[in-house]
Amino acid sequence: MNEFSLIDTYFKNISPKSSDILVGIGDDAACLSVPPDMDLLVSTDTLVEGVHFLKEWDPFDIAYRSLAVNVSDIVAMGAKPKWVSLALTLPLVEQSWLQRFSQGLKTVLAEYQVALIGGDVTKGSLVITLSILGLSKKGGVVTRSQAKPGDGIFVTNELGGAAFAVASLKQTEINSTAYKACLKKLLQPKPRIDFISILQQFASAAIDISDGLEADLYHILECSGVGAYIELEKIPVNKAVLNLCQERALDFALTGGDDYELCFTVPEGKIDDMLSRVRENDLRCYQIGTISKEKGLRAKAENGQIIHLQGKGYAHF
Amino acid sequence: MNEFSLIDTYFKNISPKSSDILVGIGDDAACLSVPPDMDLLVSTDTLVEGVHFLKEWDPFDIAYRSLAVNVSDIVAMGAKPKWVSLALTLPLVEQSWLQRFSQGLKTVLAEYQVALIGGDVTKGSLVITLSILGLSKKGGVVTRSQAKPGDGIFVTNELGGAAFAVASLKQTEINSTAYKACLKKLLQPKPRIDFISILQQFASAAIDISDGLEADLYHILECSGVGAYIELEKIPVNKAVLNLCQERALDFALTGGDDYELCFTVPEGKIDDMLSRVRENDLRCYQIGTISKEKGLRAKAENGQIIHLQGKGYAHF
Repeated sequence: MNEFSLIDTYFKNISPKSSDILVGIGDDAACLSVPPDMDLLVSTDTLVEGVHFLKEWDPFDIAYRSLAVNVSDIVAMGAKPKWVSLALTLPLVEQSWLQRFSQGLKTVLAEYQVALIGGDVTKGSLVITLSILGLSKKGGVVTRSQAKPGDGIFVTNELGGAAFAVASLKQTEINSTAYKACLKKLLQPKPRIDFISILQQFASAAIDISDGLEADLYHILECSGVGAYIELEKIPVNKAVLNLCQERALDFALTGGDDYELCFTVPEGKIDDMLSRVRENDLRCYQIGTISKEKGLRAKAENGQIIHLQGKGYAHF
Repeated sequence: MNEFSLIDTYFKNISPKSSDILVGIGDDAACLSVPPDMDLLVSTDTLVEGVHFLKEWDPFDIAYRSLAVNVSDIVAMGAKPKWVSLALTLPLVEQSWLQRFSQGLKTVLAEYQVALIGGDVTKGSLVITLSILGLSKKGGVVTRSQAKPGDGIFVTNELGGAAFAVASLKQTEINSTAYKACLKKLLQPKPRIDFISILQQFASAAIDISDGLEADLYHILECSGVGAYIELEKIPVNKAVLNLCQERALDFALTGGDDYELCFTVPEGKIDDMLSRVRENDLRCYQIGTISKEKGLRAKAENGQIIHLQGKGYAHF
C-alpha cells in the first residue's frame, strides 16, 4: 500500500462533501471558498506518541482527541471550525490501526461538522499534526488580550477530570464508573461548540483550558495586561475526582490541563444577560473571580488566606 | 527554556507584520483577513529526519527546504503563498540548532513574502510539518484535472540535479562546483513563484515536480482522465548531472524528484502567447510532449522506440 492508496482508503471520503470546498484531497493544495463577511482562523496542534497519547490507546481515541483539541482552539476564539488538514507520520502501515484511526476521525469530523481537506502521510515515529481552519464574523473574533478590570471570570464546566485520568493512567486497578468518566474526558474531550455564540456576543477574552486553569487564565492576564482575583472555593471541581481523590482534587482542577473547557471574561454590565442566555440554552457556567487592575493572580483559599499563584501548568519541555 | 519563551525567541518576530494578520502568534488561533475576491489555498507538508533530510544538515537548509517545498505546492495551483504555520517536534531544545533553523526560516519567509502565523512546538523525534495558505483569484485556481488532448506539456527548467545530489549524498569525495550546484537544488529548492501569473493565465493543469517528472505527470494524466506522448530527448536534463553521470542523467531527470520545478499543460491555441510571455519575463520553459486522448504515458526513446512508462517515482512507504 503506497501513500496514495492509503489516503484513498482511509482518508479521502470520510467527511461530507461541501460546496465551499472547490478542490479537496488529491491536488497540490485544497481550494476553499471563504465567505466575504468572514475572517479566517487557523490553529495547529501536534500530538506525539508517549507525550500526548500512549501507544496502547485505541487509535479511535487518538484520532478523536487529536481533532477535538484542535477544534477547541477555534471555539476559544468564538469561531466556527470548518476545515482541517492532517499530517500523519507513521512508523509502519498497519491496516487495523489505520482503520480505527480513520473511524475515530470520521466520527469527530461528523460531530463537529468539520471537513478533512488534505494533509500528508510520512514514515517516522508516530506524530499527528492537525491544522484547523475556522470562520468568524469580520472583526468579531475573541482573543486573549481584551480582558478589562471589573470583568467577571467564568469557566464552562467542572475541572480536573482529565488531569486525574492522566495521573491515574498507570493505576490499572482503578476501574470505577467515576474513573471511566474522567478517562473519557481525556480520551474524547468535548470542545464547547455550544458556547461559540455566547463567546461571540458577551466575552471580552477567552481561552481553552488545555494546560490548566491557572496557567491558561494567566495567559489571558499577561496578554491583556491585567491581573485577577479568584476564590478557590468557587472553582467547580469534578465530582468524580472529589470522590476518588479529595485531597488532590482542587490541585487537578487548578493546575491540570486536558479538560478543554473554556475560561472566559465578561464585562460586568453584560454578565446578567450572558447568564440568562446560558440558562436559555440549557448550559451552565461558573464565575470564579474578577479581573483586576492590579497585576498577578491572587486566589482566596478556603481558609481565607490570599495566595499568589504563578501561572503553573503543564511544562512542554 | 519553556515552549512559550522558545516561540518568543525564535519564531515570534521573524516575519514582517502585515495588515491582513488580525491576530498572529500567541493566541489560540491566528485570525486572517481574506480578500473577498480571492479563494483560499491550503497545503501541508511533513519532513521527517532521516527520510526527507539528514541529521547532519545545516538547520538553515532544513528550514529553507521545508518551507520551499510547501510554497511550491501553492505555486503549482497558480496561487500566491501568503501565510504558514509551523509544527516543530524536537528531541531537545538545542539553542544553536534553533538559532540556525530560525535564520533559515526567516530568510525563506522574506524571499517568498510569506508570514509565519502560528504553529506548535512539541517534544519527540525531529519532525517538521508546515501548513501553508495561499490566495488565488476566485475561480482561477489551476488544478491537476483539466488537461485536455492536444495540450502541450511543459517543464520550467532542467531536471535531475536534486535527485543526483540525493543519490550522491554519501559520496563525500564528490566536491566539484557542479555537484555543489546540484546539492543546492536539494537543500534550497527555489519554488517557481516567477511562473504563478503564467500558470494563472495559460495553464490548463499544473503540478510541482516533487516525486519525479514521470510520477508527477502521471498524476495529471490520472486526474484529467487523459494520456500523454512525450519525447525523452526533449526532457531538459541538468547539465551538471550530464557531466558528472551521463549514463544515469536521463533517469534522474525522469524519475528523480526534489527539483520542485513545475510541469504544466497549455491548450494548443495558447502556446504561442504563453511562450511570448515567458520570453518577455526573461524565463524559460521546455515542451516535452503533448496530452493525448489515449490513456497511459508513452515516451519516444532516443532510438525511436516507444516505451510505456508506469508513473514511477519516489515511494513514500
